[in-house]
Amino acid sequence: MKVKIGGETREFRTLWREGRTVNMIDQRKLPHRFEIATTDNHEETAEAIRNMTVRGAGAIGVAGAYGIAQASMEAGNLSSDDFEAYLRAAKDRLEKTRPTAVNLFHAVERCVKASMGGPVSERVRKTVIDADAVAEADISASMRIGEHGSALIEDGCRLLTHCNAGALAFIDYGTALSPMRFAHWRGKSIFVFVDETRPRCQGAMLTAWELKQEGIPYAVIVDNAAGHFMRRGEVDVVIVGADRIAVNGDVANKIGTYEKAVLAHENGVPFYVAAPMMTFDPKCANGDQIEIEERSAEEVRGILGAGDGGELSRVLITEGDTPVRNPAFDVTPAEYVTGFITELGVLEPPFSDSISSALGEVGK
Amino acid sequence: MKVKIGGETREFRTLWREGRTVNMIDQRKLPHRFEIATTDNHEETAEAIRNMTVRGAGAIGVAGAYGIAQASMEAGNLSSDDFEAYLRAAKDRLEKTRPTAVNLFHAVERCVKASMGGPVSERVRKTVIDADAVAEADISASMRIGEHGSALIEDGCRLLTHCNAGALAFIDYGTALSPMRFAHWRGKSIFVFVDETRPRCQGAMLTAWELKQEGIPYAVIVDNAAGHFMRRGEVDVVIVGADRIAVNGDVANKIGTYEKAVLAHENGVPFYVAAPMMTFDPKCANGDQIEIEERSAEEVRGILGAGDGGELSRVLITEGDTPVRNPAFDVTPAEYVTGFITELGVLEPPFSDSISSALGEVGK
Repeated sequence: MKVKIGGETREFRTLWREGRTVNMIDQRKLPHRFEIATTDNHEETAEAIRNMTVRGAGAIGVAGAYGIAQASMEAGNLSSDDFEAYLRAAKDRLEKTRPTAVNLFHAVERCVKASMGGPVSERVRKTVIDADAVAEADISASMRIGEHGSALIEDGCRLLTHCNAGALAFIDYGTALSPMRFAHWRGKSIFVFVDETRPRCQGAMLTAWELKQEGIPYAVIVDNAAGHFMRRGEVDVVIVGADRIAVNGDVANKIGTYEKAVLAHENGVPFYVAAPMMTFDPKCANGDQIEIEERSAEEVRGILGAGDGGELSRVLITEGDTPVRNPAFDVTPAEYVTGFITELGVLEPPFSDSISSALGEVGK
Repeated sequence: MKVKIGGETREFRTLWREGRTVNMIDQRKLPHRFEIATTDNHEETAEAIRNMTVRGAGAIGVAGAYGIAQASMEAGNLSSDDFEAYLRAAKDRLEKTRPTAVNLFHAVERCVKASMGGPVSERVRKTVIDADAVAEADISASMRIGEHGSALIEDGCRLLTHCNAGALAFIDYGTALSPMRFAHWRGKSIFVFVDETRPRCQGAMLTAWELKQEGIPYAVIVDNAAGHFMRRGEVDVVIVGADRIAVNGDVANKIGTYEKAVLAHENGVPFYVAAPMMTFDPKCANGDQIEIEERSAEEVRGILGAGDGGELSRVLITEGDTPVRNPAFDVTPAEYVTGFITELGVLEPPFSDSISSALGEVGK
């Protein structure tokens, strides 16, 4: 992704590996400060996932894979049994950082499997190669989502997105933001309404920052205003990401996604979900099976921002003991989804057919 | 309304007059501090409206009326012509504080009219009596809205409200919150989901505070979560207030009201608008005629809250120059409204009939 630093524009990935070091954009500090954090071993990488230096489904998965790669290099001089034990312990540690991150489990599982067989030095090499492959697969899927999705965006299109399904949630390009990037690069004039996305404000803090770096015109709105702009005919298409998609097309995503989907439906605005095939869960028949995690009341009671001096600080909106309900995700029934933008193309209704056929294609 | 101070529970109005002094709950400091602000002349009252010490349609109207009463007492020793000029100047000053506050214009206009005729001493008396009558009419309408509305609330009811249409927005009881108060007082067990209501968070800051004082169980949610709870069947009825209602039943209210109305409709949840008859505008045929004011970008870019030391401070969520759209209100088409809870009773569809008949009843 493009990042403007000083007068210069440079290309960055959300995270990347150099030998045993993992570098990552410190997402806790955006948009107020652009800083690169580094981790020199798998324990530090686990901590970076836990404390949200890196966040977003794809990015967490790759961080986990890199963590396993780091662990394999750390254990390169051990016996085969001790190597195995070291990797298992690293896997445990990495998995415990964010208990609901499905991508993380897939990625570390995959890398540990890739490490099997042969002498330790070969096992290290195989693990590292596989971790890099996880990152490359993430980039490739995002890029193809951008290409397929940009065909849905006409010149002059006014889009709306929720939360951050951008480059920062993956390694590059993103999912919901990737079609916008490709449309913009191909010379189409677009405008993006960015839902701020309370409680954690990933729209206001991360999506707005990405669009600014890219030079795509946008405006941040409060989540309450999305329906208003749809009703006034100022939104042509909505594109969001997804945390998990059932085989019938029901979508779990950031809280508020369901609201925007219903409003798009009511106003005849196409509503697309952009996600790599790995987000589809063959074991999940429909959205009723998806448990909705409720997170800390503190996220609703207060907010993190930059004070007068630019320092990050939390303020309380409510009283400190105010009762709160804070569901982190919601489920959008498939009937509100116009199509799924995947690396294989755009999946259209009936979703039970198109999704199962696409899952077959990726061997899932 | 009830206010818990120390171990004691006391009754307060949002504002009240004692001689030439107007006392008001300082709404800029809630929920973090409960303080009474006082104004000793109409200029200070105008400033209190402008700087939002007092806010909310009904409360601003009464503050304007009290301001005219103060002006009449200030001018009590002037000649008839000078008295007249003084009152006109006071009216101008008060009207300029909040240019879109319809209640304010009605109230000051009414009090200035009441001041007409007779010797100056009699004019002062008539003005003061009329200002007090504006306050009493506000209370009486709110109370009757509570009585009519509470009949719609069954024992065990789980409600949802948006913004603050509570006692703090009027003199006492409120509109949307008045039926909840009356249901609670009559021994019904209720629970209220409180939308935080970005950008200014009147739900999180004021509605939550009122419900806490009253002892009504509630939880604050982000605006994004309202649809989720409706879809899960956890909301039985929605009640909101209104800024302006067209004769066809289209409703202008705080941004986000339209979203919640569509979601209630989609999920078969009754959606009521509670408002005194003065909120209905006989000159407004439908919602398309209502201009939507866009307010300062700063409201979206940042937020006001209490810091670690309890002091109020603003933090920036976005970068300081982030482009923003900030519509203050939206229009909810009449088709999404189940009924209007007014002091005359609950107006039901077809609204063109029920509203015009109710307007006839109040001579509007």
